[in-house]
Amino acid sequence: MAYAAGIDIGGTTIKLGLFTDTGVLKDKWEIPTRTEENGKYIFSDIADALLSKLNTMNLGLSDLVGVGVDVPGAVLPDGTVNKCVNLGWGVIRAGDMLSEALGGIKTAVCNDANAAALGEAWRGAGNGADSMCMVTLGTGVGGGIILNGKIVEGAFGACGEVGHIPYNDDETESCGCGKKGCVEQYASGSGIARMCKRKLVSDGRDSSLRGYDAPDAKIIFDEAKKGDAVALELVDDFSKVLGKTLAIISAVIDPELFVIGGGVSKNGPIVTEGIQKYFRKYAFHASRDARIELATLGNDAGMYGAVHLVLGE
Amino acid sequence: MAYAAGIDIGGTTIKLGLFTDTGVLKDKWEIPTRTEENGKYIFSDIADALLSKLNTMNLGLSDLVGVGVDVPGAVLPDGTVNKCVNLGWGVIRAGDMLSEALGGIKTAVCNDANAAALGEAWRGAGNGADSMCMVTLGTGVGGGIILNGKIVEGAFGACGEVGHIPYNDDETESCGCGKKGCVEQYASGSGIARMCKRKLVSDGRDSSLRGYDAPDAKIIFDEAKKGDAVALELVDDFSKVLGKTLAIISAVIDPELFVIGGGVSKNGPIVTEGIQKYFRKYAFHASRDARIELATLGNDAGMYGAVHLVLGE
Repeated sequence: MAYAAGIDIGGTTIKLGLFTDTGVLKDKWEIPTRTEENGKYIFSDIADALLSKLNTMNLGLSDLVGVGVDVPGAVLPDGTVNKCVNLGWGVIRAGDMLSEALGGIKTAVCNDANAAALGEAWRGAGNGADSMCMVTLGTGVGGGIILNGKIVEGAFGACGEVGHIPYNDDETESCGCGKKGCVEQYASGSGIARMCKRKLVSDGRDSSLRGYDAPDAKIIFDEAKKGDAVALELVDDFSKVLGKTLAIISAVIDPELFVIGGGVSKNGPIVTEGIQKYFRKYAFHASRDARIELATLGNDAGMYGAVHLVLGE
Repeated sequence: MAYAAGIDIGGTTIKLGLFTDTGVLKDKWEIPTRTEENGKYIFSDIADALLSKLNTMNLGLSDLVGVGVDVPGAVLPDGTVNKCVNLGWGVIRAGDMLSEALGGIKTAVCNDANAAALGEAWRGAGNGADSMCMVTLGTGVGGGIILNGKIVEGAFGACGEVGHIPYNDDETESCGCGKKGCVEQYASGSGIARMCKRKLVSDGRDSSLRGYDAPDAKIIFDEAKKGDAVALELVDDFSKVLGKTLAIISAVIDPELFVIGGGVSKNGPIVTEGIQKYFRKYAFHASRDARIELATLGNDAGMYGAVHLVLGE
C-alpha cells in the first residue's frame, strides 16, 4: 500500500496526517512550529517527524507518494509562498524546500483556508460536492471557494476573502485589512465580542452577559442558548450579517453548498439555523435552496485538503 | 474552410453570425423573433435563414461544423432551457430542436448574459482573459462569470446574478425579483432613472433634468457631462453602488478583469471612471488592481460567446 502526507502548518503547531493514497487517514499527530531564524527549521522538523513515523510502521520514504502542505499565507499559482508572517517566512519556494528535505518527493502547497475548504468538500460536510463555499468563523472570517471539485485561487490570490466584503458604510473602527465596515468586523468571533461590548454600553437592559469581564463568542452563544434577551439579539444580528453575506456569495458564484467552520461554528446548530433564516430572506430565488451545513472535519480539514491536493495532481 | 454559426435569440430579433471555425466573423444579419404559438417557429426560421445565407455563399450544411445559440432565460447544465418567457418557451430541449431543423448538426445552448460574458472574454475587452466578470447594465443588471476561460453556470443556474446582490435594507419599492433593495434597483438604466425621479422630488435645487418629462439614463449621463450638479450626484451615487458591487464580487471570486457592457455602458468612460473610483475604495487590498473596462463587442457579444461554446466543446 502507498501512503501520502497531509500537513497543516500553523503558527503554533504543525499538524501531520499520514493517509493511504486512497485518502484514508491512518495516523495523525502534532509537533511544535519553530518560527525562530525565519522558520528555517520547519522543513527539517517535518521531515524528521514523517521519517520517524514511517520508521515505527516499518515503512520508508519510498512508500510515500507525496506530501501536501498548507500554510497561513498567500500562495501564488506557481506554488511560491508570498510571506507567512506567523511562520517567519518571506517569499519562499516552500514546496521545493520540503521536497529537498525529503529526498525529492512530490509536494503541493496551498493556503490554509483553501486547504480546509478543499478538505471539507472532499471528505467533510461537502462529501464530494462539486461547488462549495466554506466560511471559517474564527478570530476573523476566512473563506474558500471550490468549483468542479477544485480550489479557485483568484487572479490576485484573494478568492474567498469573504470576510472583507464591504458591509457597513457607517463603521468608525478599522478592520485588520485597513478598510472600515468589513463583514469580519461583525460576523467573526472577535466581531460578535466587539458588538457585545458596544451593546452593553448603549443598551441599558439587564443581561447575564454583564456578569463577565469581556464576553467572547462562546459566552454569548451560551447565554443566548439559556435565553438571555441581549445575547439572543447579538446572535440574531450576527446571523443576519452572515445570512446576507451568504446570499451575496450565492448571487456571485451560486454554490450548491455552504460549509460553516472555525471556532465559532463549534457553538452548533444555533449558528447555521440563524444564518439559514436570513439567507432565505436575502438570497435570489433560484439559489434559495442552497444547503448550509456545519463543517465536520474540525482541525483536520486542512490536512485532508493538503493531501488531496498532492494526490489529485 | 469550415464555418460555424453564433446566434443570439432575443425577444424581438434573432441576431445571426456566420463565423469561420477559427472564430472570424464573416457575416451577420438579423431576423424578427416570431413568438406566436409558444415560439415554435423560431427553430425553422433560424434554419431557413442560415441555409439561405449559406446558399448565397455557394455553401451548404456540410460546411457548417456547429451552431451555438444563446437564449434569454435559464439553461440547465444538461442544455435544457428552463423557460424563456420572452420567447413563449416553456421547458424545452432547444439545442435538440435546432439540431433537428438543421439535419442533426452539433449545437450548444447557453444563457444570453453568460454568452455575452464568454464572447467578451474571448474576443472582446477580455482578449483571452482567464478570469473575468462581465456586468451588463441595461434595463436591469446582468452578469456572467468566466473562470479558466469558461462560463461558470452555478449550481442553480444563478451564477453572476450580481444585479440581485442585496444592497439596501431600507428600500421600500420591490425589485423585479420580488426582493427589496437589490443592486439592480440603483445601478441599472431603470435604476438611475428611478433615483432621478426620487431626487427631483426630494431635492429642491434647480437642475437641467427638470426640463425633461422622465429623464432616462442617457439624459442623466448627458446632463452630468454638461456639468449639472444634480445629474453629477446621481452618476456618483450610481458609481458608488457599482464600485462597491465590484468590490464585493472581487472578495468572492477575485477576477483579473471586470467588463462593463449593456446600454448604459454606451455613455462611455464616465461610467468606468466612476466605478473605478469607488472600487478602489471598497476592494480588499490584494484585488485593488483588477482592471475595469468597457465592453467592445456591443450587441455582437452574445453571438461570439455562442459560437465559441459550440467550437470549444
